[in-house]
Amino acid sequence: MSMTPRVLEIRQKVLSKNDEIARALRERLRARGIFTLNLVSSPGSGKTRLLEDTLGRLVARGVRVRALVGDLATDNDALRLARSGAPVKQILTQGRCHLEAEMITQHLEGWDLEACDILFIENVGNLVCPSSYDLGEDVRVALLSVTEGEDKPLKYPAIFNSADIAVVTKVDLADACETDLALLRANLQAIRPGIRVFETSARTGAGLDDWTAYLIEQRNLRARDGAVVD
Amino acid sequence: MSMTPRVLEIRQKVLSKNDEIARALRERLRARGIFTLNLVSSPGSGKTRLLEDTLGRLVARGVRVRALVGDLATDNDALRLARSGAPVKQILTQGRCHLEAEMITQHLEGWDLEACDILFIENVGNLVCPSSYDLGEDVRVALLSVTEGEDKPLKYPAIFNSADIAVVTKVDLADACETDLALLRANLQAIRPGIRVFETSARTGAGLDDWTAYLIEQRNLRARDGAVVD
Repeated sequence: MSMTPRVLEIRQKVLSKNDEIARALRERLRARGIFTLNLVSSPGSGKTRLLEDTLGRLVARGVRVRALVGDLATDNDALRLARSGAPVKQILTQGRCHLEAEMITQHLEGWDLEACDILFIENVGNLVCPSSYDLGEDVRVALLSVTEGEDKPLKYPAIFNSADIAVVTKVDLADACETDLALLRANLQAIRPGIRVFETSARTGAGLDDWTAYLIEQRNLRARDGAVVD
Repeated sequence: MSMTPRVLEIRQKVLSKNDEIARALRERLRARGIFTLNLVSSPGSGKTRLLEDTLGRLVARGVRVRALVGDLATDNDALRLARSGAPVKQILTQGRCHLEAEMITQHLEGWDLEACDILFIENVGNLVCPSSYDLGEDVRVALLSVTEGEDKPLKYPAIFNSADIAVVTKVDLADACETDLALLRANLQAIRPGIRVFETSARTGAGLDDWTAYLIEQRNLRARDGAVVD
């Protein structure tokens, strides 16, 4: 975004309109007991891989999950995720660098939201622009791969500061990348004190039980009929 | 960027203004025989590390190099790069997701450009927005770490399509990440047929001799006094 005054003024209007749409969307999703997560990260940090594993685990446990997947181009990610058996839709942004609440509203059309416990939204891979756009989610999840280095929370503070949860990915590569996990944790806490952090590896499965348990706990808290998933 | 018509119209004006400034800047730099590179990539793909090694090697060979480093926050990268002995300036974008030509013009003020052979510009880590902003460079260099996966050229086509050179980084981690380098190369060529690709590892030093030789060759082509660096 450019900050010449006229553009700034118009951007504020766009953001404010996005916030209104996001607010209405959140109320609608919450009224149906849906737990909604917005996954943000750099390109290649493992959002799609985490979602593949997560959808598979949740479907196997009887949780009704759906996913919307944002990309500039290609529907590769939706095809990967659909293998889990969960309903998945690709949102092609046609070059736009982030998802907006209106795109979510549009792509939910035609879906039976009564048959959904958890909605995942995978944002465009971008550590900057998505931080400004509320998508009506309950929680924003910032992923950070150990291969990206310990300093990313400090260098991209807005996205980590606006996140509710951090998922550190590819922890099995920490030694190979000489990544200092204690420093990475400290940098996350410096930018977002108290943030809940899951440390995961898709390859070894580390951390995925805790992550899945958290999602099921959140799903059960919202179950309107009181029927919980074990 | 949001694509409501009024914003789109203003964005086109901003881009057109940026292009004008970039054109003037390129003429100015070329008139002084300076070879200018704009380095773009995801956060954490290794731009700063590649620059650290590159500046060190070029300074040791007597090439006069300078670097401008863009970040949303922190001057960590400028401090790292300054250890090479080369003059370095940090550009803090205050939350903006890319560098613009005007920022380059402003930060060149006060620098003796007669004493510069190669100017490196390290963009903000972002695979989307920097693709739209010409910074007056001679070549745009897109970095891609093997840890990000083979599909990134297909998913972020604008940035790879607008690049003149690709540098694949962290190739020593290809096996650990199960990255298919042949597929990655094929995806780069599919998006930007004929693009020159350097495959590098900061840890093992692989590919850095070729990369440095390319830079020196470009420097020598532009040497106004005919004095070449070996």
